Amino acid sequence: MLELRDRPAPEPGHWQVRVRVRASALNRADLHQRMGNYPAPPGSPADIPGMEYAGEVDAVGSGATMWPVGSRVMGIVGGGAHAELLCVSEREVLPMPDSLSFEEGAAIPEVFLTAYDALYRQLDVQLGERVLVHAIGSGVGTAALQLARLSGVTVYGTSRSEEKLERAKSLGLVHGIDTAAPDWAGRLEALAGANAMHAVMDLVGGDYLGDNLRVLAPRGRLCVIGLTAGRHSEIDLGVVLRNRLKIIGTALRSRTPEEKATLAREFAQRIVPLFDSDRLRPVIERVFPFEEIGAAHTELASNGTFGKLVLRW
Amino acid sequence: MLELRDRPAPEPGHWQVRVRVRASALNRADLHQRMGNYPAPPGSPADIPGMEYAGEVDAVGSGATMWPVGSRVMGIVGGGAHAELLCVSEREVLPMPDSLSFEEGAAIPEVFLTAYDALYRQLDVQLGERVLVHAIGSGVGTAALQLARLSGVTVYGTSRSEEKLERAKSLGLVHGIDTAAPDWAGRLEALAGANAMHAVMDLVGGDYLGDNLRVLAPRGRLCVIGLTAGRHSEIDLGVVLRNRLKIIGTALRSRTPEEKATLAREFAQRIVPLFDSDRLRPVIERVFPFEEIGAAHTELASNGTFGKLVLRW
Repeated sequence: MLELRDRPAPEPGHWQVRVRVRASALNRADLHQRMGNYPAPPGSPADIPGMEYAGEVDAVGSGATMWPVGSRVMGIVGGGAHAELLCVSEREVLPMPDSLSFEEGAAIPEVFLTAYDALYRQLDVQLGERVLVHAIGSGVGTAALQLARLSGVTVYGTSRSEEKLERAKSLGLVHGIDTAAPDWAGRLEALAGANAMHAVMDLVGGDYLGDNLRVLAPRGRLCVIGLTAGRHSEIDLGVVLRNRLKIIGTALRSRTPEEKATLAREFAQRIVPLFDSDRLRPVIERVFPFEEIGAAHTELASNGTFGKLVLRW
Repeated sequence: MLELRDRPAPEPGHWQVRVRVRASALNRADLHQRMGNYPAPPGSPADIPGMEYAGEVDAVGSGATMWPVGSRVMGIVGGGAHAELLCVSEREVLPMPDSLSFEEGAAIPEVFLTAYDALYRQLDVQLGERVLVHAIGSGVGTAALQLARLSGVTVYGTSRSEEKLERAKSLGLVHGIDTAAPDWAGRLEALAGANAMHAVMDLVGGDYLGDNLRVLAPRGRLCVIGLTAGRHSEIDLGVVLRNRLKIIGTALRSRTPEEKATLAREFAQRIVPLFDSDRLRPVIERVFPFEEIGAAHTELASNGTFGKLVLRW
């Protein structure tokens, strides 16, 4: 049950800044949280959803020195971003690219941080490698596609929608595989050869596991970051052992503050400038006013979106 | 079908030395190979088994400079060690600890290299962590127990035999869990707490997977190096994702020559000296003359051995 309600303005604590939120965006985890399956972590408001924001600093807590009042910022939080005001630790805050609007900025943090972390910190993809990205039309998929291409990694992308594969081509996808048709792994092998993927980024889970392991090269890595198709699967450990594979589970939300800050500072240094130089761009399906957040939830749940659904005040 | 046969003496090639094998040892993979389930890799003789050796260099190939004739050496090979003579690349050869006999040396390479690689190169265990080692009475288990204790890592060891757990105590095992009784994971949690293992070294596979993942701490790592209980299992990817776990498959035999050489040189530098200073010791259940290799196979298959079965000329 989603509704707009008045709350007292939060005050920034030590090392925090308060952000006047201008825009936020929806994530699949918001749908799970709404349905009661994914409670907010300790320290986040239980009843204000929202995991990313773009806005301006409007107050600075004691000890905080990084962001003067008026700074344009963005970032991720454990919750509470679907609000007008939000207090966050300054070291978890990202600078907004100067050239982007708040609506564009709000479409960046969750998906680009997730894709950046998965590709470079979990999977450690390298120049010249091939990576398979499932759900290439999702927010994370479109972010991973752009990042991987910039770093000289060849992307194979899957989607259950031919239309999304078409749209992904405008972001540079060359090798698209329609997973609505049977035997996606066989068709990937026809395109790329057997055991050709150095890494797989999986947002789907469920019974994709067996085929994900099948298409990996010796010493290949699989990063599991989403389970839209379910969490239970069969596994053939013989393949894992023989090909010396690595399966890596990851999630941003459950991390410690220091891990979140480390990732944010690295992303701020390396990746944020790539938006200003137009080498990366947020992919937005549609912008909703906050009053229509219910409609935005319905649209995300339809699985028809390409890129992000943004919310604005 | 095992029998002793005469073969022409092999000649050492470029960068190779020829070793007069004084002793070798048995590995579970030898049983699989004998039954036709685990063929020798390309470059190894298909019909001479044996994956480790201790002996003396008796001839040196062109370009080889590391081991003069008469050097006492040991090491692993893809096959061919159950023989009197063996040619090996010099950079994959390990020096024998001065204080050990050939029979003792032959009990070292496979299990200590495997345990060293799994603990420090795959699982990256650190001072103060807790590691669960399954099959603690096996050759690899007894090696892992000794290595982990030396590096300040607390070992929890399992065995299906109370007697093997008793014998492991003489090697320093403090926390033993009998996996012949039901619910080993629950009894481990009673000992160590929930989600207390930073790493798990699994030589068993099969339906241990679920409990292995259950006992891991957030960001815990599982290394799968053996599948005596089978290769197929169910997996809950939700646990992998939520706790940010890593599952790592590994095997020595399928590695490239340069990987094998890298591991051998590192092991020679760091670990071999620990045998001479008596901080590590090979664990030998029994020594068989090569003429009785059939009986040695039968004994290993019985699962009753603690440590290694050695073969000698």
